[in-house]
Amino acid sequence: MPTNMISKVLEKQAGLPLDVAPPAKKGPASRTSVLRNPNMEKLQNSYLFAEISMRREAHQKKYPEAKVISLGIGDTTQPIPSIVTSAMAEYAHALSTPEGYQGYGPEQGQQSLRKAIADVVYPNMGIRDTEVFISDGAQCDIARLQMMFGRDVTIAVQDPTFPGYVDNGVIMGQTGAAAADEESGGRYAGIEYMRCAPENGFFPDLSRVRRTDIIFFCSPNNPTGHAASRGQLRQLVDFARRNGSIIVFDSAYASYVSPGGDGGEDDDKHSKPRSIYEVPGAREVAIEISSFSKFAGFTGVRLGWAVVPDELLYADGTRVARDFDRVVTTCFNGASSVAQAGGLACLATAEGRDAVAHVVAGYKENARVLVATFQALGKEVHGGDDSPYVWVRLFPGRRSWDVFAEILEKTHVITVPGSGFGPGGEGFVRVSAFNSKDRLVEACARLTTFLA
Amino acid sequence: MPTNMISKVLEKQAGLPLDVAPPAKKGPASRTSVLRNPNMEKLQNSYLFAEISMRREAHQKKYPEAKVISLGIGDTTQPIPSIVTSAMAEYAHALSTPEGYQGYGPEQGQQSLRKAIADVVYPNMGIRDTEVFISDGAQCDIARLQMMFGRDVTIAVQDPTFPGYVDNGVIMGQTGAAAADEESGGRYAGIEYMRCAPENGFFPDLSRVRRTDIIFFCSPNNPTGHAASRGQLRQLVDFARRNGSIIVFDSAYASYVSPGGDGGEDDDKHSKPRSIYEVPGAREVAIEISSFSKFAGFTGVRLGWAVVPDELLYADGTRVARDFDRVVTTCFNGASSVAQAGGLACLATAEGRDAVAHVVAGYKENARVLVATFQALGKEVHGGDDSPYVWVRLFPGRRSWDVFAEILEKTHVITVPGSGFGPGGEGFVRVSAFNSKDRLVEACARLTTFLA
Repeated sequence: MPTNMISKVLEKQAGLPLDVAPPAKKGPASRTSVLRNPNMEKLQNSYLFAEISMRREAHQKKYPEAKVISLGIGDTTQPIPSIVTSAMAEYAHALSTPEGYQGYGPEQGQQSLRKAIADVVYPNMGIRDTEVFISDGAQCDIARLQMMFGRDVTIAVQDPTFPGYVDNGVIMGQTGAAAADEESGGRYAGIEYMRCAPENGFFPDLSRVRRTDIIFFCSPNNPTGHAASRGQLRQLVDFARRNGSIIVFDSAYASYVSPGGDGGEDDDKHSKPRSIYEVPGAREVAIEISSFSKFAGFTGVRLGWAVVPDELLYADGTRVARDFDRVVTTCFNGASSVAQAGGLACLATAEGRDAVAHVVAGYKENARVLVATFQALGKEVHGGDDSPYVWVRLFPGRRSWDVFAEILEKTHVITVPGSGFGPGGEGFVRVSAFNSKDRLVEACARLTTFLA
Repeated sequence: MPTNMISKVLEKQAGLPLDVAPPAKKGPASRTSVLRNPNMEKLQNSYLFAEISMRREAHQKKYPEAKVISLGIGDTTQPIPSIVTSAMAEYAHALSTPEGYQGYGPEQGQQSLRKAIADVVYPNMGIRDTEVFISDGAQCDIARLQMMFGRDVTIAVQDPTFPGYVDNGVIMGQTGAAAADEESGGRYAGIEYMRCAPENGFFPDLSRVRRTDIIFFCSPNNPTGHAASRGQLRQLVDFARRNGSIIVFDSAYASYVSPGGDGGEDDDKHSKPRSIYEVPGAREVAIEISSFSKFAGFTGVRLGWAVVPDELLYADGTRVARDFDRVVTTCFNGASSVAQAGGLACLATAEGRDAVAHVVAGYKENARVLVATFQALGKEVHGGDDSPYVWVRLFPGRRSWDVFAEILEKTHVITVPGSGFGPGGEGFVRVSAFNSKDRLVEACARLTTFLA
């Protein structure tokens, strides 16, 4: 059942407000005569993660005593190192002093943070601080980029992938309607879905991909957990250069990559870049978006960035960075100054960098436990090496939402149905390593009992 | 001279990068073939406040010794009360503990803060906490609202007004091109400009305003400082109800209003509501956006909110709040949790409310000093009673940018040229009360010397 149908069923069951106010209660006099944006109408169901939250609440209501464990939404759970929170607290306190008070910062972010990102995240990649735009998170940057590109561009996405690229494209009018039949899994007309499945090593066969203006590419991929190799990213950059396309490279999970490779003969196959800018020629075709969320536990603090290289040009020669700057100054007003102080503390000293790396290492250990659990059960399992996500096919032939629902019902463990990430995710569920070691181990024990 | 021409001249003078990469340096091979969004192309010059910053920098470069005083960009300057910053610091520290760590909050904001806003800002107005959406500032909400409305709506704006409404509408494709001739002052085709001038008491003659889907209305107005009376807001709500329009009421400066009125016969004339929801019938036609920026000095901390009442419906009966919720969950991920902790401290206790009111009172005192200064000089001066902005015509017949430039050159004081707020602002400059008492008095002394 496509998720929009599920949504409608759920709403009825839960007695939730309907889309449309019942005409009996509200006379037409109280309606405005403003037409609803037809693009909003095209959107299927609610936003994936909002829907998961809703279902979690409904489950908890049904089983008030159950200790629900979430391995669902990719939300960090472990404390932020105190070197980082102390920097935020100190900055906040200073705002009460005449010397420490600061109002609006530059919309593009504090220069010190822009420079720290350029130096620490992109060493030897030729990224200048002025090319780094600080944001309140990668999801918000996707919306701003889509606003900037406008409705006339064509887009390609990995299938499966994070749903924000598509949903923001729909809102901007880049797509037609979603297919209504069950087979096509809610595909929107006009979008190029690049299949990434176990059969192709989770990297699309680019010879069969139609040219689009924009290519959204997430590596390590959310949800499959696959990090593209250097050779694969070379192919991607070459493909974009040949086609005159712009890649939007989402590296939100880059800190989870085990780079691998030894610089030797097979390096292209074994090494996995953490940034698209490790690939020669990327500066002319790629934007990179990234985040402190999964790297420093900043999901609620809100901090991210986008890199828009000066060499990236539209067909008429206009610098893309010029338009992005206009969007950032017009539609945004900069990330919270307090969050920026915390971001700087993550990067500015070896102590800060080690502290956040330690938290990431903990989640990576969790991911290994998840992989080992599913392997021991003889299940098909992917990801986990270079990402906090594990991608599993627990019951071949069964639909993601059914598997999600059964796991929840039987084990009180929240996962994410793979089909929420696109039609190519059907049949899988995503299991997240974001939780405390204890709770993760408990969840694995429950899953083992259920699946064994 | 329209601002886009000024911008080009400035860029040439400053040797700044041109829009278009010189073809001699960059071969066509390095350009992508992605067409630039034609709506981005329509935007005139840079964003107003980014341009002011640029000119400030250029001036400081020219006069390195000059002590420039900014009465320009509406940026708060005074320390935030420590009850508020302590709450942020405490929240930040708690993020380092297993008990205090929180990841993603609800995209719509913390329930406690939504409730505090409903109770404290909208007492007896029937606003429910679920109708309050916490944001990272009113400017960002304008962008999200415009994204939600889409390109097919028609919009009206006060003239002059904050440029964000128009600029975001242009980006979304709601307008035609800007007029190129000098006379029309850069008006965009398709926008209804509602003239607000001394001649009409800064309130538009609604009998001459064309119906539009959306009406952006800012009160107290930025830049004129005029707060609409209860009677005027009644007219506005009636106008929207008759036309089936949606009002987006921007109350970012509400805390500066001296409400006036005594509930008596002339109350409609003398009392000035701080919220559109003080007017009966507004719930069916109005969204309100507001901010902690000018109220609590949060310009850099980033926190605001939007109210979207449940009764506000599109023509097909869909709740507007439903679509806004989808935009907030899809294009945004909530305001920084640390900022939200600070916002709650502003509202939750009498001590917090008094502390921020004290800061606002200081800026209001500054505004009175500005008004008195210009009055003593025999200049035409408006605003200042209900807003931190004073709106002056210093040299009748001369253009705003010229007046701005001369004030800067002669006094090293930054103002904002009125024409930056729309063609109706031509001839005026906006002077802001956001500065320390000392610096403001010093600026007034310089202005007096120059203008006397």
